[in-house]
Amino acid sequence: MSSWPNVTYLSGFKGTESWLLVSSKGLYFITDSRYAEEASNEAKGFRITLRDKRGVVEIVADLMRKLKLKKLGFEASVVSHAFYLRMERALGKPGIVPTDGLVEKLRELKDSGELALLRKSVDIAVRGFHYVREIIRPGMSEREAQGRLEHYTKSLGSEKPAFDIIIASGARSSMPHCRTDGTLIKDNQPVLVDMGVVYEGYHSDLTRPVFLGKMTPLHQKIHKIVRDAQLQGIKKAAPGVPAREVDTACRRTIERCGYGRYFGHGTGHGVGLEIHEAPTVSAKSPTVLAPGMVITVEPGIYLPGKFGVRIEDMVLITEKGHEVLTRDLDKPV
Amino acid sequence: MSSWPNVTYLSGFKGTESWLLVSSKGLYFITDSRYAEEASNEAKGFRITLRDKRGVVEIVADLMRKLKLKKLGFEASVVSHAFYLRMERALGKPGIVPTDGLVEKLRELKDSGELALLRKSVDIAVRGFHYVREIIRPGMSEREAQGRLEHYTKSLGSEKPAFDIIIASGARSSMPHCRTDGTLIKDNQPVLVDMGVVYEGYHSDLTRPVFLGKMTPLHQKIHKIVRDAQLQGIKKAAPGVPAREVDTACRRTIERCGYGRYFGHGTGHGVGLEIHEAPTVSAKSPTVLAPGMVITVEPGIYLPGKFGVRIEDMVLITEKGHEVLTRDLDKPV
Repeated sequence: MSSWPNVTYLSGFKGTESWLLVSSKGLYFITDSRYAEEASNEAKGFRITLRDKRGVVEIVADLMRKLKLKKLGFEASVVSHAFYLRMERALGKPGIVPTDGLVEKLRELKDSGELALLRKSVDIAVRGFHYVREIIRPGMSEREAQGRLEHYTKSLGSEKPAFDIIIASGARSSMPHCRTDGTLIKDNQPVLVDMGVVYEGYHSDLTRPVFLGKMTPLHQKIHKIVRDAQLQGIKKAAPGVPAREVDTACRRTIERCGYGRYFGHGTGHGVGLEIHEAPTVSAKSPTVLAPGMVITVEPGIYLPGKFGVRIEDMVLITEKGHEVLTRDLDKPV
Repeated sequence: MSSWPNVTYLSGFKGTESWLLVSSKGLYFITDSRYAEEASNEAKGFRITLRDKRGVVEIVADLMRKLKLKKLGFEASVVSHAFYLRMERALGKPGIVPTDGLVEKLRELKDSGELALLRKSVDIAVRGFHYVREIIRPGMSEREAQGRLEHYTKSLGSEKPAFDIIIASGARSSMPHCRTDGTLIKDNQPVLVDMGVVYEGYHSDLTRPVFLGKMTPLHQKIHKIVRDAQLQGIKKAAPGVPAREVDTACRRTIERCGYGRYFGHGTGHGVGLEIHEAPTVSAKSPTVLAPGMVITVEPGIYLPGKFGVRIEDMVLITEKGHEVLTRDLDKPV
């Protein structure tokens, strides 16, 4: 166990660089002296073992001998191959079993405590979006808008941005993962705002284009197509529905309007202790939606050298259908 | 090749989720549609290949067949074991060779262009520290100080904080990796400030305790020991000296004063495209210092439940000895 969000999920510890050994014979938490004090406060129910001269692998090997454990499952998508080779040397190949997505699968379904934190995270992000929509004006740099937004959301209780917040103006909005910089925002241009915060470990994620000045007919047309596509996707979101159908609903709408090749990414992803987590919402997604899942629905159209529009909401799957967690985004303030 | 900082170092591309195939028969850059526009602008000299229905492993396998390459070196400390298993299936075990630290080793020695960016990153961080030292006062929350500091450094050109900035007040400063939160700063307490920024991809990292009000004799004593230890470490920093001797110099000073068991972490690390990179400065470090290396020297003493003091500077190894890049930190402003 070495994915930090998985460690947080299972133990309550909110730091990083820690490992869990979970077995019916005991729960062990392995970390180093930098985290000793937090770990004993937060990882209740685990025995804390500090790394000394022994590395993590040696500590695990010692514990397995002591507890007479024969097999160790490890997170193959998280552990590096070099770390695997160290485990293989210490424990022997038959003793170590690659696993994939066990805890990530549990994390797909948010319980009520997690949902309360996610709602708070969404609330701060929505208020942050309303704030940045108000302050953005021609002549302000993207980075200044980003800095003010981050300070504002921090004053509302955000631990930090959920990711590198994107404020991409003009033609730069056509790069889906544009890196915000000192570019000055101009009049009569779309500004893409893709933002979120972390609250008590839980992430939020939302995107809206903000138009300063006048929208051209092309801006209006693309905006309408993306919004229609997104609403088609959201409409599909319900328990029992394959996640890929949400993707299909968005993608078909955009394809029918002739812009299919300008929508190159998947439609969405789960959000929680990580900004991107299971399930994925794409053509290849194997997941069937279930109550408690929280996904983003975020189709986009990107016209290179011109502009891009992406619209993103966070959607909770409920017993009866869905709830758009970010529904207050488009409200006037 | 899949460590994003290594990709940046070799190609100039500043985004993430991209892979390089480097061979005498050609330079290939593999990414997805989200990064297509940036990659073609930034990764000069590389042939851009976009992921389509094929995954990265399949694209690499196709390229190897096309170029008649027999062996693929991969970054074993970065690539997950699951990714390795996919490569093993596609390419056969004899065709894939684990490598470790090849590019990281090159990155240890900063060239003049990199040093210029690092100096700018340090300059912004030092000005940020002077700013936060001025604004911190009793009654302000740690998080508010953090938010204002981040906004200020962003206005000076910082892309983002180099890591989760630590502003830890009172007894919280005894946790080396304390997570800054809404705790209110009180009078007559030490506040540990560990901060840095990213400028054009290059990180800075510095730590100072700020004392509000009156220092107790114990505060003064611990502060003096840590500063003496740090200066002993910095004095050692010169080309041809094993990095572990810098650690030893710090550690002995603290041990001689009877606080050895309260200094649980290594003395420092390299800084550059990553906040922590090679070389490490610890008892186990195999590195011999050489001109162009940039390391931190950051001993600390942490008294659980009381307070902690860490003092950190960034030090460039020069032909003749060293230069403290953060030397302006203690200047009055």
